[in-house]
Amino acid sequence: MLPPSLLRLVEELSKLPSVGKKSAKRLAFHLLNQPKETPLALARAIEAAVEQIGVCLTCFGLAEAGNCPICSDLKRNQAQLCVVEEARNIFTIEASHVYSGLYHVLGGSISPLAGIYPEDLRIRELEQRISEGKIKELIVATNPTLEGEATAHYLTDLFLDSEVKISRIARGMPSGGDLEFADPATLARAFEGRAPFNEPGK
Amino acid sequence: MLPPSLLRLVEELSKLPSVGKKSAKRLAFHLLNQPKETPLALARAIEAAVEQIGVCLTCFGLAEAGNCPICSDLKRNQAQLCVVEEARNIFTIEASHVYSGLYHVLGGSISPLAGIYPEDLRIRELEQRISEGKIKELIVATNPTLEGEATAHYLTDLFLDSEVKISRIARGMPSGGDLEFADPATLARAFEGRAPFNEPGK
Repeated sequence: MLPPSLLRLVEELSKLPSVGKKSAKRLAFHLLNQPKETPLALARAIEAAVEQIGVCLTCFGLAEAGNCPICSDLKRNQAQLCVVEEARNIFTIEASHVYSGLYHVLGGSISPLAGIYPEDLRIRELEQRISEGKIKELIVATNPTLEGEATAHYLTDLFLDSEVKISRIARGMPSGGDLEFADPATLARAFEGRAPFNEPGK
Repeated sequence: MLPPSLLRLVEELSKLPSVGKKSAKRLAFHLLNQPKETPLALARAIEAAVEQIGVCLTCFGLAEAGNCPICSDLKRNQAQLCVVEEARNIFTIEASHVYSGLYHVLGGSISPLAGIYPEDLRIRELEQRISEGKIKELIVATNPTLEGEATAHYLTDLFLDSEVKISRIARGMPSGGDLEFADPATLARAFEGRAPFNEPGK
């Protein structure tokens, strides 16, 4: 009984992640209840983003043209390279203000079960960047998942004999976390990586 | 550090109900990760719905032109009129297939606290429709909230002396509900409106 154009809107909205048929309807009615300019601004923002945003030619993050603002910023540390799985990871790390070097987006992680092998990721491009000689340190910030760890191991093996210092971001208890809710793998990592307060006998 | 067009998309998405800054980012990256056609189809669906959907000239529900499909359907019971607060309520009732009459959308409920008085709702239009003489029964299906109840009382008073039969949808325990989680007001209604199984002494 929904008008056809509303039905189509509900259908398109329900393709969004974690939006079911019911929330899609709610969103559609919300959009129609607003002054016309609000939903139209959303529609135009989608179109503009899709048309304007492409892949950075250097790091494979997001860029509106050629290189992304990070790769174009010469004030950033040009000797550090942080390897991430997805472009969105860059923005998460940037938001924490803990890193000021460059990035490299692999485009996923090694997952033989899902049919993703090293040659499907941007590893050749990473080797190319490193072979240029400016990068002195590689920080592997793939996710602490099975696939992310496998990818980290693969990269560590690959660059082990190179001149580049390689490190993996630390794993342990998340800040503000509660021991009660920590899974065994996280706790195991937290104990393994424990930091000493003093050095008796030294 | 987000490209400007992405930043704008995140901003527009975060205007959606129950979408915070974080989910808006997640939605934006999801849209950009899809083949271009998917986000563009969403943008076009929004534009089409906003441009094409207006208000039904008879019931004030949603219509693509003139009258809505329900008001135009002569097979529906033309003597029953169900009064709802919002257009979206029509689709909820339609989905339950319990009603085959016509509708009237008030456009809200009486709420002096929010500055909404009877004259702000489509009550004059309702009186007009009833004065035409075809409506024999009025079913008040405003929400079982304080405002919805106030509106129902107002309408009941208004049409008490008319020839039209007025009823209010029943309140009680929701089907599939659990007594443990019922609030006192719902339980009180459920007891008040209890239905007899037998009639001893008759």
